[in-house]
Amino acid sequence: MPARPPLRGHRGRAGAAGSAIVTQPIRLLVTGGTFDKEYDELTGRLFFKETHIHEMLRLARSRLPVAVETLMMIDSLDMTDADRARIVERVAGCGERRVVITHGTDTMAETARALLAARPDKTVVLTGAMVPYAFGSSDGLFNLGSALSFAQVLAPGVYVAMNGLSFAGDQVRKDRERGIFEPVP
Amino acid sequence: MPARPPLRGHRGRAGAAGSAIVTQPIRLLVTGGTFDKEYDELTGRLFFKETHIHEMLRLARSRLPVAVETLMMIDSLDMTDADRARIVERVAGCGERRVVITHGTDTMAETARALLAARPDKTVVLTGAMVPYAFGSSDGLFNLGSALSFAQVLAPGVYVAMNGLSFAGDQVRKDRERGIFEPVP
Amino acid sequence: MPARPPLRGHRGRAGAAGSAIVTQPIRLLVTGGTFDKEYDELTGRLFFKETHIHEMLRLARSRLPVAVETLMMIDSLDMTDADRARIVERVAGCGERRVVITHGTDTMAETARALLAARPDKTVVLTGAMVPYAFGSSDGLFNLGSALSFAQVLAPGVYVAMNGLSFAGDQVRKDRERGIFEPVP
Amino acid sequence: MPARPPLRGHRGRAGAAGSAIVTQPIRLLVTGGTFDKEYDELTGRLFFKETHIHEMLRLARSRLPVAVETLMMIDSLDMTDADRARIVERVAGCGERRVVITHGTDTMAETARALLAARPDKTVVLTGAMVPYAFGSSDGLFNLGSALSFAQVLAPGVYVAMNGLSFAGDQVRKDRERGIFEPVP
Repeated sequence: MPARPPLRGHRGRAGAAGSAIVTQPIRLLVTGGTFDKEYDELTGRLFFKETHIHEMLRLARSRLPVAVETLMMIDSLDMTDADRARIVERVAGCGERRVVITHGTDTMAETARALLAARPDKTVVLTGAMVPYAFGSSDGLFNLGSALSFAQVLAPGVYVAMNGLSFAGDQVRKDRERGIFEPVP
Repeated sequence: MPARPPLRGHRGRAGAAGSAIVTQPIRLLVTGGTFDKEYDELTGRLFFKETHIHEMLRLARSRLPVAVETLMMIDSLDMTDADRARIVERVAGCGERRVVITHGTDTMAETARALLAARPDKTVVLTGAMVPYAFGSSDGLFNLGSALSFAQVLAPGVYVAMNGLSFAGDQVRKDRERGIFEPVP
Repeated sequence: MPARPPLRGHRGRAGAAGSAIVTQPIRLLVTGGTFDKEYDELTGRLFFKETHIHEMLRLARSRLPVAVETLMMIDSLDMTDADRARIVERVAGCGERRVVITHGTDTMAETARALLAARPDKTVVLTGAMVPYAFGSSDGLFNLGSALSFAQVLAPGVYVAMNGLSFAGDQVRKDRERGIFEPVP
Repeated sequence: MPARPPLRGHRGRAGAAGSAIVTQPIRLLVTGGTFDKEYDELTGRLFFKETHIHEMLRLARSRLPVAVETLMMIDSLDMTDADRARIVERVAGCGERRVVITHGTDTMAETARALLAARPDKTVVLTGAMVPYAFGSSDGLFNLGSALSFAQVLAPGVYVAMNGLSFAGDQVRKDRERGIFEPVP
């Protein structure tokens, strides 16, 4: 990666005081996960219809240059190696240098590792939710704000943004007993 | 990647690539604003009671080391120079090097400039909401996630985190006609 | 009015056990009130735009034959004698024999008395909300369900449906200190 | 209790104008159903914890004399004959003459028939929801308001209150394709 700083004006005091901040375009890849689950009132089961990302960005009054693209709509427990390969490929292939991926929490760390193995020269941030947005998920909106912010300022690499934190993609796991993310010990 | 890391505090001792990310403690100063307005069902008017920040952090499943402190609970249109002096003083006086301030949107840029004038050697991020959290504000949760994330990774300086963006504190204004923040032309 | 049973259509051929229930058409007159107040994010004030009744009936999965008509969109503290005369006239003039009126709570009892003075040979039920529907009002939805149900089964007369109760229109007042409706002592 | 009309003051114009309305105590029996389902963020599945009825009544600002009693917390598809016998027994055994039962929608009509077979000399109203209250169910709150209102004024018998309507207990079925209740043809 060349010397170009990720965000003009984020370079420290002199920079922050001296210039407006230019935000680079962000690719937002949707893969499903709890984020986008809905309640099917005819069957009483949870299912996927369409992503809520557009609505979330609208309600958030987001002014970010975000291109949303739905890659798949699946529970991350059902994600195959082929699905992961497709995500890796799309991250490499898209034009943006900053990518956010919404993803089920259960195998988010696994996908982070698959992305890392491909050594993308981009800033890639995975995020998700513990509660579906359609059920009044507060963590979904919070995490989306968090992931989009980390994606703007973190150096190239793969990260997981959950619980307000950013984790290095090869140093994180989900504690399923407690429903939180934590550094690999 | 060159030597200068964009993320002070995210290197820990051996760099972002080599270790779990260490998050420094964050001071969260509450000043009121739309964020915390509630509906008084006896008078039909909006008013302030207590901050919703604790509930928001809980619902967000935040695991950040945040110390919340309510400085005042006012509409930012009512904020006086003395109020601003108190905010500046508290930012300088608190032990943390990373500070988030919840603030009414109308004079957020003015407080940012007051903070900049004091040249704090800290990362200070102001944020707020266009709709009260108590009225199902999606932008409040999104902005809180955004502000707490920027606060962890931006270099020392004063910033405004709104609409998914971070603005340098002396280069931002609110467009009241459109209800958005934008760089000073 | 004589011994006519309160629930026409609930007897069918052989009483409640013997037939399906036939619901008569209901006229729903919107006059504004807390029910329909919204938050203006540009001014930070509450205001009226359009009624939420259609959305509420849709979310309620209502299958009632309801004709919604917006008469005015005002705070009931601003309601004039002319406004009340218009409501009375519309109740008398509409084709339905069952009428629900959404109304601000502050002068709901006054409008009930104006309606009673006109001695309509119809079942008229006024209802409202303590919290705007747009702010996640639980009492608005509950009260709407309550008012529409009372309107189907109560004998001709004027009623106020609030707090789960139905009050005779000339025997009710709002206790503004406690924000509840109660019988006139 | 003999021929005393269900609600004083609901007997027609003379009555309505001449007396306050006295509401009899209501027994509210909780059996579970979609009404009370929650999202388990650790397993990603729906489950039952405790009833939301108390919270719903509080948010509804209900002033009704309601005694809430949880009989069971189950999906109505799992309801056995023994469960139904217990509901029938409890309806007969409780002191109140007006009973509301929250129930899963799938077998609500079946339980209504079991109740009818016992010929209770009480007004019994079953209700439920298509969407869990915890997921922002609008129909749950609407239906609760509706059921509690019908229960106050309908003559003794067994009813289903859904979609804003009241159905005679032996003349109703759920159309599972459309997710609505309708009279038996």
